[in-house]
Amino acid sequence: MSVLQPQRTIEELKELRALTGNEDGAQRVAFTPTWDKARDWLRGKLAELPVEIEVDEAGNLWATLRGESEKELLIGGHIDSVPNGGWLDGCLNVMAGVEILRRIAAEGKPPVTVRLVDWADEEGARFGRSLFGSSAASGTMNPDELRHLVDKDGVKLTDAIAKYGLSLDTVKQATHQLKKAAAYLELHIEQGPVLLDMGLPLGVVLGTFGVERHAIRFVGQSAHSGSTPMNRRRDALGAAAKLALEIREIGKRNGGVCTVGRVETKPGIVTAVVGQCDMTLDQRHLDAEALARMYREAQEASYRFAEEEKVEVSWSKIWDIHPILFHPNLVEMCDEAIRETCGTSHRLPSGPLHDAAEVARAGVPTIMMFVQSLHGISHNKIEDTLEEHLVLSVEAFDRLASKAMAWVASQ
Amino acid sequence: MSVLQPQRTIEELKELRALTGNEDGAQRVAFTPTWDKARDWLRGKLAELPVEIEVDEAGNLWATLRGESEKELLIGGHIDSVPNGGWLDGCLNVMAGVEILRRIAAEGKPPVTVRLVDWADEEGARFGRSLFGSSAASGTMNPDELRHLVDKDGVKLTDAIAKYGLSLDTVKQATHQLKKAAAYLELHIEQGPVLLDMGLPLGVVLGTFGVERHAIRFVGQSAHSGSTPMNRRRDALGAAAKLALEIREIGKRNGGVCTVGRVETKPGIVTAVVGQCDMTLDQRHLDAEALARMYREAQEASYRFAEEEKVEVSWSKIWDIHPILFHPNLVEMCDEAIRETCGTSHRLPSGPLHDAAEVARAGVPTIMMFVQSLHGISHNKIEDTLEEHLVLSVEAFDRLASKAMAWVASQ
Repeated sequence: MSVLQPQRTIEELKELRALTGNEDGAQRVAFTPTWDKARDWLRGKLAELPVEIEVDEAGNLWATLRGESEKELLIGGHIDSVPNGGWLDGCLNVMAGVEILRRIAAEGKPPVTVRLVDWADEEGARFGRSLFGSSAASGTMNPDELRHLVDKDGVKLTDAIAKYGLSLDTVKQATHQLKKAAAYLELHIEQGPVLLDMGLPLGVVLGTFGVERHAIRFVGQSAHSGSTPMNRRRDALGAAAKLALEIREIGKRNGGVCTVGRVETKPGIVTAVVGQCDMTLDQRHLDAEALARMYREAQEASYRFAEEEKVEVSWSKIWDIHPILFHPNLVEMCDEAIRETCGTSHRLPSGPLHDAAEVARAGVPTIMMFVQSLHGISHNKIEDTLEEHLVLSVEAFDRLASKAMAWVASQ
Repeated sequence: MSVLQPQRTIEELKELRALTGNEDGAQRVAFTPTWDKARDWLRGKLAELPVEIEVDEAGNLWATLRGESEKELLIGGHIDSVPNGGWLDGCLNVMAGVEILRRIAAEGKPPVTVRLVDWADEEGARFGRSLFGSSAASGTMNPDELRHLVDKDGVKLTDAIAKYGLSLDTVKQATHQLKKAAAYLELHIEQGPVLLDMGLPLGVVLGTFGVERHAIRFVGQSAHSGSTPMNRRRDALGAAAKLALEIREIGKRNGGVCTVGRVETKPGIVTAVVGQCDMTLDQRHLDAEALARMYREAQEASYRFAEEEKVEVSWSKIWDIHPILFHPNLVEMCDEAIRETCGTSHRLPSGPLHDAAEVARAGVPTIMMFVQSLHGISHNKIEDTLEEHLVLSVEAFDRLASKAMAWVASQ
């Protein structure tokens, strides 16, 4: 019997689901008692291994298996979930990491130090600030921007984390955790339909999309729907509808994704031409130049449609982030590990952000592996992956860990 | 000096504005003390004339000038306004009617009976039910549909009208008012931009638009904006945007007006493809066949777009009404009266409904005359019309009254 037992990972994920979920799904929201219970359970699993366990100033839980070298290979995930979440998002990574630690530890002292990290509050489900622990460790967090955050019950983030011994004043001391890191590996469910469509179990993630996120407002003239002839209208919805359709073409033409997720009409009544139309735009691409081009094309289109419709248009930025590319050597290793495991690999970008993006921003060579999602759906109790694919993912991820460990040792 | 003094109408409208308006506009909401005050003021004006005054079972105020014949020529308007309304909507008609009654009375007993009616609650501003008094008189009202109506303060319509001695049980006894009516004339501000655009003071109204009013729902699949490739989306907004643009073409192509006044997106967040999009459709045309064609074309387009976008579509009717055409002989007389007054006339439909539509539905030969609106705007304190155009409107309306009286007398 092999030392690596991927089936055990599946059993443990089911055990975790039974312990911390209910009929609506997973309930391991960070900084809550259920999350705490999940972590206690995880500590129990780790206690059987020759690892040192610590929680850092940002609430990240680390299990360190000392090796011949101080250079570190990191394996990461997050045990927190959204409310009513799925049984795999985040915790698959953690439990696959535990299984790989077991395999490595069983082989004796490894050539490099291997560390498993369970990042704190990846989801940001309660306070709206995702990647809490990893952004503290990477150093990109500005703690002052988090001081005003409250949850839906009015509880302040500062009070919620204080219950776990954390303070925004010291949270960034967690940056020391990445000082010796030589590589970071993260396995995750795809949360999209690409691998499902291709009939492939596993894929190499090239990086996380850069994002341009904007609010767009068209202002025309509200007017009576009965007494205003078609050629006399300044219809804000007309311009917005044209833009909603055009941004899809911009996405397709440039190989990215562009989404209008929200449209609001004012006065918004059946008997009035729309005087003001607000819409959101979300554009994502792995290539910074292509992202900039998509943004420029959307702006130009909005100005053109505003002129055609005799309305005004204004833009305001909601958020943006540059694309984050994963490490080329690790991309090759991940590709090899997948091909050795199941024959065929595929390279794809990640739409959602992940803790891996924060680690990459800190300059640590980083890679992610995706396993197929059924339904292409996540953040929902119907989130699922075939068990045979979960087994393959643990096997391929273990192969990747061996390759990465050899690579780190050789540096 | 002519007996007809249109300038006096303007002075009286300003007097009424000072008495029943404030810095936000007219406040003569039906069944309120300010409306009552306006009516007392109107009674004062009428008291100087040889007319009989009565208020009927629907709250309509009638001033009757007996003629040689019992056949009646009616002139109508409404002194009620929306809250923060303009200084002309409804009361121009009433005060022009008073001036014409003065002119006719000064000439001795007229060949037919002439009656001025101030309809009760044309606007429906307080209880959401417009054309209260005229629909009671025409017989189209179903009083039981009004029993549950309350205003924003929770006051029941039944209690509000009881203060004025009215009851839904007897409201339709007002139908006797139209029994001897041989023609009905109504002057109104256009409330749209057509005459303004053409540089014409006056126009003949051909009838009121028929209306098809519907709610349309597209249902696709909400999906993550980052992880869902463009070609995998079932974007409900895509179908709605296509339809919003297409219905404008349907309106133009068929010579009607089509409006999408409200669009709602669900889940309506920046990071999700729209899973459900609700929109309203309002289509209006003077020709019943063209209206039916516009409705059919919109439905067909929605099915086509739903198929293209792989989404579902469903329709539900909000309201509809057939077009109401005014009387061809009166259209000709009105056209003549306008040309004799200011040289050029124009025939146009009415987008908004008016009390005249109810009278026409009761089978009484009916006509409306429009006077140009500045800004094309109404139901607002900035509603306005050039005083020289108001003078022309009273003169032309008086000419129309003479022609119509002769026509009624000759029958």
